[in-house]
Amino acid sequence: MIDNVIHDVKEPYLLTPGPLTTSHATKAAMMRDWGSWDEDFNQVTASIRAQLLAMAEAPSDEYACVPMQGSGTFAVESALACATDPNDKVLVLMNGAYGKRAAQLLDMMGRRYVTLDKGDYLPPQPKEVAALLRQDSEITTVFLVHCETSSGILNPLESIAEVVRAHGKTLIVDAMSSFGGVPISVVQTPIDVLISSANKCIEGVPGFGFVIIRQTLLAAGKGRAHSLSLDLHAQWDYMERTGQWRFTPPTHSVVAFQAALAQHREEGGVAGRCARYTRNRDALVKGMQALGFSTLLDDEWLSPIITTFLSPSDPAFEFGVFYATLKARGFLIYPGKLTEVESFRIGCIGQLGITVIAQLLSAIQEALTEMGVSLLANLSAHSGSA
Amino acid sequence: MIDNVIHDVKEPYLLTPGPLTTSHATKAAMMRDWGSWDEDFNQVTASIRAQLLAMAEAPSDEYACVPMQGSGTFAVESALACATDPNDKVLVLMNGAYGKRAAQLLDMMGRRYVTLDKGDYLPPQPKEVAALLRQDSEITTVFLVHCETSSGILNPLESIAEVVRAHGKTLIVDAMSSFGGVPISVVQTPIDVLISSANKCIEGVPGFGFVIIRQTLLAAGKGRAHSLSLDLHAQWDYMERTGQWRFTPPTHSVVAFQAALAQHREEGGVAGRCARYTRNRDALVKGMQALGFSTLLDDEWLSPIITTFLSPSDPAFEFGVFYATLKARGFLIYPGKLTEVESFRIGCIGQLGITVIAQLLSAIQEALTEMGVSLLANLSAHSGSA
Ligand SMILES: Cc1ncc(COP(=O)(O)O)c(C=O)c1O
Ligand SMILES: Cc1ncc(COP(=O)(O)O)c(C=O)c1O
Repeated sequence: MIDNVIHDVKEPYLLTPGPLTTSHATKAAMMRDWGSWDEDFNQVTASIRAQLLAMAEAPSDEYACVPMQGSGTFAVESALACATDPNDKVLVLMNGAYGKRAAQLLDMMGRRYVTLDKGDYLPPQPKEVAALLRQDSEITTVFLVHCETSSGILNPLESIAEVVRAHGKTLIVDAMSSFGGVPISVVQTPIDVLISSANKCIEGVPGFGFVIIRQTLLAAGKGRAHSLSLDLHAQWDYMERTGQWRFTPPTHSVVAFQAALAQHREEGGVAGRCARYTRNRDALVKGMQALGFSTLLDDEWLSPIITTFLSPSDPAFEFGVFYATLKARGFLIYPGKLTEVESFRIGCIGQLGITVIAQLLSAIQEALTEMGVSLLANLSAHSGSA
Repeated sequence: MIDNVIHDVKEPYLLTPGPLTTSHATKAAMMRDWGSWDEDFNQVTASIRAQLLAMAEAPSDEYACVPMQGSGTFAVESALACATDPNDKVLVLMNGAYGKRAAQLLDMMGRRYVTLDKGDYLPPQPKEVAALLRQDSEITTVFLVHCETSSGILNPLESIAEVVRAHGKTLIVDAMSSFGGVPISVVQTPIDVLISSANKCIEGVPGFGFVIIRQTLLAAGKGRAHSLSLDLHAQWDYMERTGQWRFTPPTHSVVAFQAALAQHREEGGVAGRCARYTRNRDALVKGMQALGFSTLLDDEWLSPIITTFLSPSDPAFEFGVFYATLKARGFLIYPGKLTEVESFRIGCIGQLGITVIAQLLSAIQEALTEMGVSLLANLSAHSGSA
């Protein structure tokens, strides 16, 4: 049925923060073409939007879910453009690449902002946020990355959200790499705007992101966009009126996502998925520590999404060789994204469980042996750096 | 091998301007997950970019091909932002929705422009363009939609390009629905910027568009973008340096496109594909005329992409019923997009040939009979309106 071409390639497991290893059923949903204008496809879109609202525990009379074509950054850009205006002032909480990117987006669209920059991996503290909000009454909005994928840290969303609510400010959360894999309720944890994408914890394929946004903010965003394509209000308005996406949707990614959502439900929703990812993460971290690796972060900050490991200090360790050796054994890992120390990352999300993690750990052990890397040297050299 | 779910749905033929009916091999390429950071995927990206340049006959030392995530409009927006600056003045040639959209994009990004608006379907004439360029020496750039998909007209690209060149101006062409299906050489027909997308005549699935642009224009576009996500220069620069897309690529759409390109080559490239689409169009128009329908356009303006037919004036004809009746028989057609007269459109592109067109024509005949539409009434009522 399926062409040979897809079987003669050994398909590696993607131990990355997405695009990730998706299920056969998710990919098989793409074996059909859909008319983007047809009612059958409109029903898929409507169903996805409703399921995403439910997953965020967002009441459908207070929030809307608006999908946006492109990568996750496209969705973040459209959300920031809609939910802020030039009179606003945004406090951007930064501890990695995605917090920085939000500041860059605000720069580009001429929004005022201040930052709390914690460097490569330290978490912003609720009391620091409270102090900044007290000091600068012009701040209207706080931007937080939930899981900062650069380091893998799970930032303290709940406690920061409480502070933001206590000050009566708007909270925008980039939950790109956490939504669907870590429980988030936009009502219990007061969140005004939440952004994520198809190819992360819901385990779809890339092609679009989505924004869950308070309807009052969406209404205020009318006519505010700096871009026609990324106009979130216009996308929402058109979808509400016609059931269709404003411009051509990535039809195959959309139907794959619907299949992925069904599997997410079957696995027990966010709780079930979080449990599996946590088991993966625990097995990974325990196994890596047994091999002599250290995590960048203290245990309390580790997300079940992706973990950063410090590169061994042994000069025999070379990331390029390590990567290629693991790839030859069927595993793709991820490079580090820290500015200060050498590191690499291993993801725990996607269609994989602890059996794959155990196979990966064996492959890592073999790679170290092949490179002639001494693990004890690694252990001692890095013990003080995290 | 493939889940049942995809077999219990009768999959209709998409007689639309895209997303369209793609081949099994194209969809099957999506049955694998790819690491977006990995060298294997970078090679796919590089290969696609090179093949697209070759298809446009664009010398690789003068032009670059830059893919952009999102729908076709996203690519048009990124191209206009890169290739024009606030000192430029663009002449937008309009005869339908996509010319209008270009003006809307220029508005949004604060670019100066004038328009030559020919209404719903009349072609802009080279001598009109020449007169406007003579009159207004501030005009720096001309924007033309090659196949204006709203009506299906194939605008006179070659003769307009000659006029633009003679005046030393820049030509930007939206070849979204024509590139790959109608021969275009950016050297023989002097074109500075050409925009298209994955899900049109190359018969990929939606998820990204691409811009073929003169390198000098690309370089001048550095730092000009109004949007971070849609910054064409930054996308190009990052790709050149790393081989990767700047933000997460729609991996499955990209590998499907590579498969689609291979099939395009096997069919004899643009010439082969154009021949099949032309046969489809000829069989369709002939058959529809035999049934009593009239085309909106005179024969000389018909594209091999999509044809607009006037709705019969018989009150028994209702587009909703017509559409549903054809859908029940496995064919999705497209609504009209004219502002003045009732119409509908039938596409000739995608994985289909004259056998499918013949089946469609039978289904249309049955639909007319079911609705009780009188064809002779139709013929006479509309004979003067095109
Ligand atoms: C937290 C976070 N925000 C934003 C993004 C950007 O997403 P994309 O690469 O899809 O544009 C990512 C991607 O991994 C992410 O992890
Ligand atoms: C000529 C032309 N330009 C632009 C577009 C816009 O493309 P999209 O709907 O992918 O944004 C289309 C879509 O059909 C088109 O035919």
